[in-house]
Amino acid sequence: MSAAGCWRVSETRRIDYELRNVADVFDPACGALLADGRIEGGRRFVVVDAEVQRHHGARIEAYFAQHGVRTHTVVLPGGEGAKSMASWQGLLRALDEFPIHRRDEPILAIGGGVLTDVVGYVASSYRRGVPHIKVPTTLMGYVDAAVGIKTAINFNGRKNRLGSFEPPRRVLLDRRLLRTLPRRHLRNGVCEIVKLAVIKDATLFAQLERHGAASIAGAFQGEAAGEILDRAIDDMLQELAPNLFEDELARVVDFGHTFSYGLETRYEDCLLHGEAVLLDILVSTAIAHGRGLLADAATARILALVERLGLAPPLELLDAALMWQSLLDRVEHRNGAQHVPLPVAVGEGVFANDIRRGELADAIATLQCWTRPAHDRIVEC
Amino acid sequence: MSAAGCWRVSETRRIDYELRNVADVFDPACGALLADGRIEGGRRFVVVDAEVQRHHGARIEAYFAQHGVRTHTVVLPGGEGAKSMASWQGLLRALDEFPIHRRDEPILAIGGGVLTDVVGYVASSYRRGVPHIKVPTTLMGYVDAAVGIKTAINFNGRKNRLGSFEPPRRVLLDRRLLRTLPRRHLRNGVCEIVKLAVIKDATLFAQLERHGAASIAGAFQGEAAGEILDRAIDDMLQELAPNLFEDELARVVDFGHTFSYGLETRYEDCLLHGEAVLLDILVSTAIAHGRGLLADAATARILALVERLGLAPPLELLDAALMWQSLLDRVEHRNGAQHVPLPVAVGEGVFANDIRRGELADAIATLQCWTRPAHDRIVEC
Repeated sequence: MSAAGCWRVSETRRIDYELRNVADVFDPACGALLADGRIEGGRRFVVVDAEVQRHHGARIEAYFAQHGVRTHTVVLPGGEGAKSMASWQGLLRALDEFPIHRRDEPILAIGGGVLTDVVGYVASSYRRGVPHIKVPTTLMGYVDAAVGIKTAINFNGRKNRLGSFEPPRRVLLDRRLLRTLPRRHLRNGVCEIVKLAVIKDATLFAQLERHGAASIAGAFQGEAAGEILDRAIDDMLQELAPNLFEDELARVVDFGHTFSYGLETRYEDCLLHGEAVLLDILVSTAIAHGRGLLADAATARILALVERLGLAPPLELLDAALMWQSLLDRVEHRNGAQHVPLPVAVGEGVFANDIRRGELADAIATLQCWTRPAHDRIVEC
Repeated sequence: MSAAGCWRVSETRRIDYELRNVADVFDPACGALLADGRIEGGRRFVVVDAEVQRHHGARIEAYFAQHGVRTHTVVLPGGEGAKSMASWQGLLRALDEFPIHRRDEPILAIGGGVLTDVVGYVASSYRRGVPHIKVPTTLMGYVDAAVGIKTAINFNGRKNRLGSFEPPRRVLLDRRLLRTLPRRHLRNGVCEIVKLAVIKDATLFAQLERHGAASIAGAFQGEAAGEILDRAIDDMLQELAPNLFEDELARVVDFGHTFSYGLETRYEDCLLHGEAVLLDILVSTAIAHGRGLLADAATARILALVERLGLAPPLELLDAALMWQSLLDRVEHRNGAQHVPLPVAVGEGVFANDIRRGELADAIATLQCWTRPAHDRIVEC
């Protein structure tokens, strides 16, 4: 280790976690919620989304009571506001006063992407890291936020500015929880599935064309919808697992996540994450088309899918100056390079590093010509 | 990866960093400060201790100017107060407004253990982790805080309650920086060396017996002092490197870090970390002696070393109720077990898991009989 006043530390750390489809996670006969920790005499710090609590609170309470596990439950309101420094500190204070063992009493995060992001960051910060289990209850959480190991809170007016890479102990996927989700939140999560389909998976794209609209209408309870979800998670993990700590900064899953960053910061109160991602996907598609990278037919197919799914992107929010600033911030984040994924066919992408400001403005103008204003307004900013 | 609705993520992460003795770290001819990042057109966010700034600020500024690197420097006052949520947030805000690339413009932490702990936590939190380099300027930082990968801030009235495991890019060890350190701060760091000597390294213990007092008097500038420092770092790394993320919670380096936790929380304003550790070392020694684990001669030798080094432990601060509470908190931290290191000989220890409250009170009483009140008062609480 040491040689003449020089020491080198070279070690490896093992990352290991599981994602699992579960039929009814709050059924006391399903042990998955408690599988990784102390049960007898055990304690669990539970953070649950307010809507989920309303629908399932009694069952969750009964679950732990039946197993004899003592809980302290904090109910967190939905929405981006919960991803704040204040909310993170409040959770940490409540946790510190409960308290829990450092290793065998995992924190339970039951909610959408915002909730699992902030609770994951609580878990990673407390005593330099205590385990946590994620139970996503929104489609966005299910196919995106809960799949990887990224945690975050917003800070200094910027989204996800603080956070960590913190592997969960496990992720429990129970799509029955999506049944009570409002239509807008189903569409919100679908935007991340569209992202994967456009940039890396033509088969998933075809599945969305055939079964996407019905899946949304049926809150992803049917068989074809289940196949879409499984495939989206496969795709995500193919991209995330070999690059968990983002050693490689050119990431396919960043498709839709360059210009959206500024949009969702400005329109925090009225634009959901997936809605901002969809706007970015469309602008990136227009840039790719403008460069001659993406053929007319493929471009038309992408636009048609968005329309068929009823996603109704609020194109009037597009703003070249804001989105250019957003790209510049992403360049700091991507260590000096743009690394902007652009589609070159349905299911295939490349990275651009030379997008110019004028090109972005042109793409926005083109896009606003292509697409008619939506009649079915979803977003009101 | 997937099999019937079940996915497992199994990956490894490589941890790699270097510690290096450097003769004069702020000499522009020494490239170590800039070695790991972008120099031409580069930026560095520098956090420096106020005393270090007073002594070396001009040289630090000249260093970066000569290399053409743009800096933003934040001066942090010394002392435990800087390890707060407010100070961490202030640094993050300043960083976010500078800003830096995510990978090739490492943050520089130049200061004592408090500073490198809080700046390490800033680095690990910002954008889920940006690199940092540590330059310890106190003996405590040099032999302890800067050696490993633990970062922390105090929270909710509890020390180090939030933090992370965040490997630095490198650690630059320049013992010339210790020359301006007040005597009390030299003794503070020596307590951590005593810890290693008592619990795992009889050779280091003998080195301290022979050269410890002179090393303190000469601010660790002499040759024998340099050998003590190198050996202490060897010892630390032997313990830390195979257990960087504390998968094993029974840790030799936790010797002196069980009962001290409550003491330094209560006496934050007047007791330094090493002073609290020393009190814990002595109480643990008395417990070991009381159990018949540690012979009279070895016990006497430990007490004699403490006296010879002029460490003057403020025994009047010992308080069984407080220290018992401290042990209970450490039990949560050590996942339900005490794991208290106790010496069984000079340079050798075991872990106790069955310390009783009465035994702790007895050990304190015994200790207060053994040792005369110090004439040379260092701590005034």
